[in-house]
Amino acid sequence: MIYLESIHHNQLSPNFVFYNPLLATTPNAETTSMVLAGVLLSLVFIYLASKLGGELSKLVDLPPVLGELVAGVVVGVSALHLLIFPETGAVASDSIVIIILQQIAGLNPESAEKVFALSSKVISILAELGVIILLFEIGLESDLRELQKVGSQAAVVAVVGVIVPFVAATAGLMLIFGLPTIPAVFVGAALTATCIGITSRLLLQLGQLKSIEGQIIVGATVIDDVIGIVILAVVASLAKTGDVDLLNLVYLIISATAFLLGSVFLGKFFNNSFMAIADKLQTRGKLVIPALTFAFLMAFLANTVGLEAILGAFAAGLVLDETDKRKELDQQVIPIADILVPIFFVSIGAKVNLSVLNPTSSGNFQGLAIAAFLILVAIIGKTIAGFAVFGQEKINRLAIGIGMIPRGAVALAFVSVGEINGVLDKPLQAAIIIMVILSTFVAPPLLRFAFQQGEQLTEKPDLALEK
Amino acid sequence: MIYLESIHHNQLSPNFVFYNPLLATTPNAETTSMVLAGVLLSLVFIYLASKLGGELSKLVDLPPVLGELVAGVVVGVSALHLLIFPETGAVASDSIVIIILQQIAGLNPESAEKVFALSSKVISILAELGVIILLFEIGLESDLRELQKVGSQAAVVAVVGVIVPFVAATAGLMLIFGLPTIPAVFVGAALTATCIGITSRLLLQLGQLKSIEGQIIVGATVIDDVIGIVILAVVASLAKTGDVDLLNLVYLIISATAFLLGSVFLGKFFNNSFMAIADKLQTRGKLVIPALTFAFLMAFLANTVGLEAILGAFAAGLVLDETDKRKELDQQVIPIADILVPIFFVSIGAKVNLSVLNPTSSGNFQGLAIAAFLILVAIIGKTIAGFAVFGQEKINRLAIGIGMIPRGAVALAFVSVGEINGVLDKPLQAAIIIMVILSTFVAPPLLRFAFQQGEQLTEKPDLALEK
Repeated sequence: MIYLESIHHNQLSPNFVFYNPLLATTPNAETTSMVLAGVLLSLVFIYLASKLGGELSKLVDLPPVLGELVAGVVVGVSALHLLIFPETGAVASDSIVIIILQQIAGLNPESAEKVFALSSKVISILAELGVIILLFEIGLESDLRELQKVGSQAAVVAVVGVIVPFVAATAGLMLIFGLPTIPAVFVGAALTATCIGITSRLLLQLGQLKSIEGQIIVGATVIDDVIGIVILAVVASLAKTGDVDLLNLVYLIISATAFLLGSVFLGKFFNNSFMAIADKLQTRGKLVIPALTFAFLMAFLANTVGLEAILGAFAAGLVLDETDKRKELDQQVIPIADILVPIFFVSIGAKVNLSVLNPTSSGNFQGLAIAAFLILVAIIGKTIAGFAVFGQEKINRLAIGIGMIPRGAVALAFVSVGEINGVLDKPLQAAIIIMVILSTFVAPPLLRFAFQQGEQLTEKPDLALEK
Repeated sequence: MIYLESIHHNQLSPNFVFYNPLLATTPNAETTSMVLAGVLLSLVFIYLASKLGGELSKLVDLPPVLGELVAGVVVGVSALHLLIFPETGAVASDSIVIIILQQIAGLNPESAEKVFALSSKVISILAELGVIILLFEIGLESDLRELQKVGSQAAVVAVVGVIVPFVAATAGLMLIFGLPTIPAVFVGAALTATCIGITSRLLLQLGQLKSIEGQIIVGATVIDDVIGIVILAVVASLAKTGDVDLLNLVYLIISATAFLLGSVFLGKFFNNSFMAIADKLQTRGKLVIPALTFAFLMAFLANTVGLEAILGAFAAGLVLDETDKRKELDQQVIPIADILVPIFFVSIGAKVNLSVLNPTSSGNFQGLAIAAFLILVAIIGKTIAGFAVFGQEKINRLAIGIGMIPRGAVALAFVSVGEINGVLDKPLQAAIIIMVILSTFVAPPLLRFAFQQGEQLTEKPDLALEK
């Protein structure tokens, strides 16, 4: 019947008649319905890719997020063209989604470009909402009170682990590769934050989450995430103004830090009102709607004062983490994150054009060299940070450093922000994404090796390997 | 610090410098970030409105969804202008969101129209995703097996309750008000479906959900929702082709019914594969992602074959309702629905321009008369349906009819579809929304009265009122 009906449609199309010529917005009506169709089909491809990639990663014992990112590269502009964006220079006829719409629904060529532009924009904004929810969730899970236990050791590892890769990468990019200051600073900053999710999962697998090394690693990842997000807000703002003088820098660092600390501080008072409001509400979504309203408001404020939306969402998460409703809220945010966050990871992967790093083309030499340089700095920079631990004789400093290697959400947020602000060209975006993929890839075997070495040196029974 | 920083920004703005002129996409970059800011602020207004409206409704013992709809009217084009859409003829300078962006973030006037158009489009698509999730949830909650208990009685009430208001409204609109066939049929069809959610909550409050009357009402609402959604798909397709000949009508009814029955039938086989897949998955979102992928795919298919996206989502819900994972899935879909569905209700309310029904303007007489006519037909049509119950001596037929009065999601979906297809002009859209609001408003006291009368007649103790 569907087949017959669509034939019938085509026969009728030249005779479209509307009762009121003023309301006869056929092209517009057609477009709205087709934009929805484009968004729905894109989401289907995104979800299929994210699940396939995530599950395959899990099967070979790698973090699922790595698989989602790689799956994004596969469905994106580099390969299958199931999910492509105008920003990568693509046109409607490159998009499999648009081609399918033209085949099934008879979308005419004039509307195709418009539908392509609008549905891509909607997916991009959904991806942005995804990274906002992701940072809100990371904020919710960053227990600031836990930090006091590992205290100063973690802080030292975090600070050294931020400074070394940041300085090494920025200096290298400027001196060796001749990049201008702003992109060099931006890429350097992208190397600062370790991925909390990947690292803590890895420690759990190795049975080291509660060891002293594990505690320091987790504490340091929380701190370097906070530092990384502040740096992101600062360098993105620098990139917007294009002005790197000291005064501007000081202003930005103070305003970003003040925003974060100020909201956490004000949050101490807000917490009680939030609890009181959530307790009084009777209708559906009584917890999740106030929480998201707060997160979106903070994201909006951070965005409009020249910082980054994700800084606001992260601050909102930190604030609400302090409430008694935290666990219940966490439970409800999970399904929302589950449907929005993969849109971010897959889109980031889909926007990378791997052909800019194709080794068979000699023009790509610099991009490839930068990618190789970044992965080296990413690994060595964090490894050095481990050796900054002081005052403990028998501690596995190598394992602490290696445990900090995996980069993730924050580094990818740099790519997204750098793309929006026009700071990162395609090869630099691709180089950062490859750095994220490889850092996540090499960390598990290296960390297993480091703990094994440590156990042999201190001659304790090798619990980690037996598991 | 924020104040200082923003002053600093303004001083610098004439001197924006980018390292690579090819990448210096300032207007575009600015726009993307501002579209996100516009979407975030709109969502904040939507959530605040929905919670305020919903909670106030709840306080005075009315369905929360009524409050969300009315709150939408208040924040929308009729009053506060916090949430407005270009489709209502508004421009950027009418929008409080855009005015705020201009004040806080220094959005320039040229970009304002673009940001207004794009952020409104994103909110519209989010609202469409909201109604898709809503119908998916209704499908998940419509237990087809339950229907067999009340069986034929409910079917008769449903069918009479669909035919009477549909025929009366369509005939009245054509004969009394002189409307052309397609809009008249469209509005008539919007009166067919009772709101499952509102009705079952009302019965629960009156302690009548498990009574024989309650069982018949609930069974009939499920059936008339299915009929209503099929009619929506059919009349929307009629509206697109503009052709109401019998052959086209038969094609459409058969294809819509075949789509629904076919997917439920195929679903019996698909169920097992779905369970097997969901059981094997290991990563986050292992249940909700496959379910939503299925729902979005069905919505896409229904949309592209000329039916409506919500028909596909509803069918997907009916299919997955049959699986063992239903409860777990329900739990996870709730927070997703909680954040997306209010966007639909508030947007629908916000798009209504009540000024088209302002009684002080004589030009609005017809619109007002149509609204009054619709609410009368909505009430009387369903009340008559109650008297169609056969074979039972001592049954409260009045209560059954009155219990069917509240209209809701499906009627509002007609408004949304009618607007997209250009079938409904502003006064007709407003008239349907007022019909929904009033039907939901009058049902609770009327139903209380009807059950009270019934109890007195049969001289049973008045349990319902004592509660």
